[in-house]
Amino acid sequence: MVRDRIVRLYEVGGPEVLRLEAVPPEAPRAGEVRLRVHAIGLNNSEAQYRRGEYPLRDTTFPTRLGRECSGIVEALGEGVTSVSVGDVVSTIPAFDIQRGGVYGEWAVVPAGVLVSVPDGLSHLEAAAAWQQYLTAYGPLIEHSTLRPGDTVLITAASSSVGRGAIQMARLLGCRVIAATRNPAKRDLLLASGAHHVVVTDEEDLASRVSAITDGKGFRVALDPIAGPGLRTLAEAAGHQATIFEYGQLSRDPAPFPLLDVLRKSLSIRGYTLWEITLDAARRRRAVDFISGHLARGTLRPAIDRVFRLDDIVEAHRYIESGRQTGKIVIDVAGDSDGERQPRSP
Amino acid sequence: MVRDRIVRLYEVGGPEVLRLEAVPPEAPRAGEVRLRVHAIGLNNSEAQYRRGEYPLRDTTFPTRLGRECSGIVEALGEGVTSVSVGDVVSTIPAFDIQRGGVYGEWAVVPAGVLVSVPDGLSHLEAAAAWQQYLTAYGPLIEHSTLRPGDTVLITAASSSVGRGAIQMARLLGCRVIAATRNPAKRDLLLASGAHHVVVTDEEDLASRVSAITDGKGFRVALDPIAGPGLRTLAEAAGHQATIFEYGQLSRDPAPFPLLDVLRKSLSIRGYTLWEITLDAARRRRAVDFISGHLARGTLRPAIDRVFRLDDIVEAHRYIESGRQTGKIVIDVAGDSDGERQPRSP
Repeated sequence: MVRDRIVRLYEVGGPEVLRLEAVPPEAPRAGEVRLRVHAIGLNNSEAQYRRGEYPLRDTTFPTRLGRECSGIVEALGEGVTSVSVGDVVSTIPAFDIQRGGVYGEWAVVPAGVLVSVPDGLSHLEAAAAWQQYLTAYGPLIEHSTLRPGDTVLITAASSSVGRGAIQMARLLGCRVIAATRNPAKRDLLLASGAHHVVVTDEEDLASRVSAITDGKGFRVALDPIAGPGLRTLAEAAGHQATIFEYGQLSRDPAPFPLLDVLRKSLSIRGYTLWEITLDAARRRRAVDFISGHLARGTLRPAIDRVFRLDDIVEAHRYIESGRQTGKIVIDVAGDSDGERQPRSP
Repeated sequence: MVRDRIVRLYEVGGPEVLRLEAVPPEAPRAGEVRLRVHAIGLNNSEAQYRRGEYPLRDTTFPTRLGRECSGIVEALGEGVTSVSVGDVVSTIPAFDIQRGGVYGEWAVVPAGVLVSVPDGLSHLEAAAAWQQYLTAYGPLIEHSTLRPGDTVLITAASSSVGRGAIQMARLLGCRVIAATRNPAKRDLLLASGAHHVVVTDEEDLASRVSAITDGKGFRVALDPIAGPGLRTLAEAAGHQATIFEYGQLSRDPAPFPLLDVLRKSLSIRGYTLWEITLDAARRRRAVDFISGHLARGTLRPAIDRVFRLDDIVEAHRYIESGRQTGKIVIDVAGDSDGERQPRSP
C-alpha cells in the first residue's frame, strides 16, 4: 500500500476545507528530512489558521498544515548529520508549515526541529508532547524563578497546555490552582495534579485564591484567555506576581488593571513559545528538560481522543467543540491498534 | 531666632490646609535622628496626599508631610552610630511621614534613610535628588538589562522623574526619546539630554518612534500616565520590550493592548520606588550608584523653582499647576541667598 496521502488547504474555511489527497513524497532539500509520519498532534491554533484568523503572510494555496508529529526518518537532505534514516523522532513546533506541515503520511521538515523520542514513549504520546510542554516551560521555568511552595494559577486548565502546565508546576514543587469554567472538569483536573480547582462560573476566583494562599495571592499565572477576566487575575495576584498572557480566547477587550498593577508591582507579559523555540540556548535547555522528564515518565501527555487520518475533518470539528480535555491526536500508522505498543516503526 | 516651625495638616484639602506653626523640636527615639532641615524637595505625591487621594490608613491628624530633605544632623536617638551630629545628610524617601515628615525647620527620621551629601552638592540639590533618581533607577538599572544603543522612551518627560530618567538613561549610553504634550518644552528636553523629543499633541508617537529606531521600537519605556496612551506605547514598543507604569496621571481607563503584547512578547509592569527603598541590597546598590554620579556631577538634579518655607502654600499651588519642568524645592535655611554656596551648615 502506498502511503502518500497528505492534508492540504486550498482555501480558508470550516473543517471541510481540509482535503486529504495523494501526493508523491517530496525529496528533502539541503538541511531537511523526510519523515514517515506515525502520529500527529492537533492544536487549536491550526483550526484558527484554517479559519483564516491568522495573518496569512506569504501563504500560497494549496498549503499544508500542522507542526507536531512523531515518525520515522525516511530520507535525508544534503548536509544532514544530526539524524539517520530509521531514527524515531518527533518535531518541535518551530518551522514553516507552508512547506513543512505534518498533517499527512509523509512530511518534509527542517532537521533542526527533530528530537529523539525517548524510550517508552509511544508515537501518539510523542506527537502530543512538545507544544504543550514547550509552551508551559517558558513561563514556568525560563521566565520565572518559581520555588517550591509558590502558587501557580493556570486558567483554561483542561486544555492540553493547561494540563501540561499543571504537571510541570507540580514537578517544581509548586502549589497549583487550576481554573476552569466547567464544573464537569473539576475531578479530571484534580486527578491531573491540581491541588485546587476553581470553577469560575460558580466561584469568585480572587477570593478563592486569597483563601487558598492565606491572602498572599499567586506568584505566576498562565492565561490564554485575557478579556475582562484579566482584572480578576490582577486581583488574585500576589505582590510582584507575573501574569503570562499566551492567547486570546476571549473575544472581549481586556481592561488594563492599573491599580492592582501599581499597588502590587505586577507584570503582565505576553508570551509565545517562539521565544523558546527560536532561541538556540533556550530551546536546548527546554528540550533537555522535557525529554528527561518524558523518558522518566514524570511528564506524560494526556491524550483526550485519537482519530484516524481519514477523519481529519471530524477531528477538526471536535477541536472546535471545546469539549476536549487534553490532546487530540491523529493515529496515522495504526499504532494504537490492538495492544498498545511503545512504538512500532 | 528659634527655628522650630513645621508644616502640619489638620485635614485634607486644597493647598491652604498646609499650616506652618511653631512646634518645639522632638527628641529622636531609638534609631532616629533629628535634622536641622536646610532644603526640602516637593513631590506631586505629596499634593495627592494632601488632597486625600491616598488611602490614609492609620493617619491621625495633625500629620506632617514630606519625605525629601537635606540638612544637618542635630541629635541622635539611642543606638544610632551610622551618622554623627554635624553631618550633612539627605533623606531617601522611604519612611512614615506621619512622624517623619520633613516639611519644616526640623524633622525626626529613621537613621537608616540618611545618606551623606556628596561634596560639591548644595542642600537644594541634595533635597532634589533622591525621589527622581531612585524612581528612575529601578526600571532603568535594577529591573532591566539596558545596553548602550538601546532606545528608552520617557513620557511626561519634563517632570523631575522624567528629567532624572533622561540623565540616567544617557549615562547608560542609551538613545533617549522624550515624550511631552507641550511643544514649549521641546527645547528644554533636548537641552536636558534627550536625543529626540516627540510632542504627543502634535505628532504620532508610534510612527515617530518607529522612524527614529528604524522600525525596531523602544526597549524600555517609563510611563507615569497610563490611560488610553498605553495602547500607543504598546504600538511603539520593540520586540520583548518592557513598559514600566509608575503612576496614574491619566484619569481615563487604560485598555490592555493584548494584540501587541502577544505579538511582541511585551511586558507591562507596575513599579514603585519602594521596590528599591525597602530592599536592603537593592537600596545599597542604588544609593552607591546615584551618590557616585552626584559626586562626579554626572547626575545633577534640575531645579525648576525655589520657594521659602513661608510660601509652602504657594509652592503646592505651583506643583499642581503642572507648569514646572524639574524639581520644586523649599529653601528653608536661606542657602540660596546671595552667592551660590555648595553647602552652608
